[in-house]
Amino acid sequence: MPFARIDLIKGKSPEYRRTIGQIVYTAMVEVLKAPENDRFQVITEHEEGNFIYDPSFFGIERSVDLIFVQMALAEGRTVEQKRAFYKQVADELHAQLDLRREDIFINLIGTGREDWSFGNGEASLVKS
Amino acid sequence: MPFARIDLIKGKSPEYRRTIGQIVYTAMVEVLKAPENDRFQVITEHEEGNFIYDPSFFGIERSVDLIFVQMALAEGRTVEQKRAFYKQVADELHAQLDLRREDIFINLIGTGREDWSFGNGEASLVKS
Amino acid sequence: MPFARIDLIKGKSPEYRRTIGQIVYTAMVEVLKAPENDRFQVITEHEEGNFIYDPSFFGIERSVDLIFVQMALAEGRTVEQKRAFYKQVADELHAQLDLRREDIFINLIGTGREDWSFGNGEASLVKS
Repeated sequence: MPFARIDLIKGKSPEYRRTIGQIVYTAMVEVLKAPENDRFQVITEHEEGNFIYDPSFFGIERSVDLIFVQMALAEGRTVEQKRAFYKQVADELHAQLDLRREDIFINLIGTGREDWSFGNGEASLVKS
Repeated sequence: MPFARIDLIKGKSPEYRRTIGQIVYTAMVEVLKAPENDRFQVITEHEEGNFIYDPSFFGIERSVDLIFVQMALAEGRTVEQKRAFYKQVADELHAQLDLRREDIFINLIGTGREDWSFGNGEASLVKS
Repeated sequence: MPFARIDLIKGKSPEYRRTIGQIVYTAMVEVLKAPENDRFQVITEHEEGNFIYDPSFFGIERSVDLIFVQMALAEGRTVEQKRAFYKQVADELHAQLDLRREDIFINLIGTGREDWSFGNGEASLVKS
């Protein structure tokens, strides 16, 4: 059920953007134990002036390649799972796209299980 | 106070998009008991490659007409209200726009009452 | 760690948009006690038809200059801090950009401290 918003500056190829989505999805399934095929994401490309980040906050040097990943998901994952999720996303983006690990900013938003309808006008995760 | 983000693939008419917003708003008022005129929404249209969804997750067949509705609202609604909200949104989108019920994905995000300012720099829902 | 999404109708200058971001950031640091340089924001400009608001809900008269500010941040701020944040954002937008206080809609979304990675694939706010 996670729903991810991925934001970045314009200029990357469709294949590059698609791969970001694929990596976030794979880490969701492998680490956060989301079900297979539970993939819902929007990617938004911004003009440079509308994509604002600090280049060195928290001692991390960021570049124009920075991506924001904001993902809503039902609560219940442990801190260790979240930690492993961040690591896998960063490791894979680095391995597959040569994206610097410094350039990956992630924010999770917790929800209840009753907060999701995957279709058909039903509350998909609660029994009726 | 709900604030809704509606995302879909480019190509629908302004009237079609406006009607989606109207239907989400009406269900908010009728089912979730939001006050009349409490309507704040942004609609974002995406290139197909930036709008990613699984075509059959959870046994639901989705098409390029899929819409994502993500809505922040103060906590306090019951599971039954949320369930009825999903149903009314899907039923009305189907009735008014011939949108397939399978093509409606909804995610709610709960907030506190102190998390809203409707204007004037005030915390609108908490007493001063 | 706050991550802000700022939405408005197209037509404002880059400088105007940049100043909105600056004011939201400054209030975050001064009032919500976010650390210096903790600035991560995306600004999205919309066609008028995709930016939907009620012109008088809650007795507040809104115009096409309305902006939505939606900000995710770790829980722990008091109601008084949030109230002061809304006020400073509205006061400064009015003072610096002549934006009407009525035209500022703000929504906060609370998260856990484990819900943030500022980079390097690490859970930035929890000890390992």
